[in-house]
Amino acid sequence: MKGNKILNNDPSLYLALIHHPVLNKRGEIITTSVTNMDLHDIARSCRTYGIKKYFIVTPIELQKELVDKILSYWQELEAIEFNKDRHSALSLIQVVPSFDDAIKEIEILENGNTPLVTATSACPNTKTSTPEAYMKTLSEENRPGLILFGTGHGLSSQITEKCDFMLMPIVGKAKDHYNHLSVRSAVAIYCDRLYREKDK
Amino acid sequence: MKGNKILNNDPSLYLALIHHPVLNKRGEIITTSVTNMDLHDIARSCRTYGIKKYFIVTPIELQKELVDKILSYWQELEAIEFNKDRHSALSLIQVVPSFDDAIKEIEILENGNTPLVTATSACPNTKTSTPEAYMKTLSEENRPGLILFGTGHGLSSQITEKCDFMLMPIVGKAKDHYNHLSVRSAVAIYCDRLYREKDK
Repeated sequence: MKGNKILNNDPSLYLALIHHPVLNKRGEIITTSVTNMDLHDIARSCRTYGIKKYFIVTPIELQKELVDKILSYWQELEAIEFNKDRHSALSLIQVVPSFDDAIKEIEILENGNTPLVTATSACPNTKTSTPEAYMKTLSEENRPGLILFGTGHGLSSQITEKCDFMLMPIVGKAKDHYNHLSVRSAVAIYCDRLYREKDK
Repeated sequence: MKGNKILNNDPSLYLALIHHPVLNKRGEIITTSVTNMDLHDIARSCRTYGIKKYFIVTPIELQKELVDKILSYWQELEAIEFNKDRHSALSLIQVVPSFDDAIKEIEILENGNTPLVTATSACPNTKTSTPEAYMKTLSEENRPGLILFGTGHGLSSQITEKCDFMLMPIVGKAKDHYNHLSVRSAVAIYCDRLYREKDK
């Protein structure tokens, strides 16, 4: 649909937290565990910023069962009555076994329209983009967006090579360039930047 | 020091997470529990953005002992070797029994200079400020800043009435104006906004 210049001012955004394939400290490919806090905090950020779905990507069936068990609690009437806002945020979560499955799910929801995928990178390269430019491209090409976040020590190249864009890294203000945010904090900041840039 | 127009382009910022006095669901004043995740995630955001100290405000001695026990682990050689970045972030934490004690600690560190205090508020009032204006005032008045975040259902008026400013609320993009970020996510976004605005 490239070349279609009818602007879609409200592109659909999706988010995926990748548990495999990601790297460990030594750069080896591993599968990380799902954590309860990632489910809650990231779902709340997604819900606040209007992200359409939050995919948990893990190939491990027992991890999927664990997430489904947590989510099923928040579908119960008692939990909804206790905290309907949390129920609403967690309803955005879907567990999928792989990155490709997340793409397929988005295509189903977007009538066959394939998302433009971005991750974040500390090393600028030819795919590097500002949040503003990424959102502008989604609008111009009338495409949904998928933003990837890695767990462990980051996404493996098997995933990053499939990305259409790489968002500029978050650079803090520490004099020694310390930059070790939690993935939950990074998600919150990128959500804010993506939508604030659009408003300018 | 009002009227001093020598700009301090790098004002000292401090952050406090208030566990008392905060409100519960019914608007009653309570004391909330410290959570491990708040210690880690918020310390990492503070460290990334150059916040000078992260105060945990709780009057409960057993809670202070709990935090000190967690922090003491991260002072051990084994932990430093395992993850020196985490050690570095958690070194910013100090437990104080009250808001007034946080102010006193900052005055000691800043040679008697009292911080201009801000919190965040969903209800705009005469104290409402943008992050940019808050940072500009700190620079112009050569004052340190203290940013407060509440736990539970938010800060009690005993605290907010002591604030010099109230930062504008984070407004997301959900069509129904859903806005229930975790305090960890809110801290990350405000850190980013405070410093990004300054760079414009």
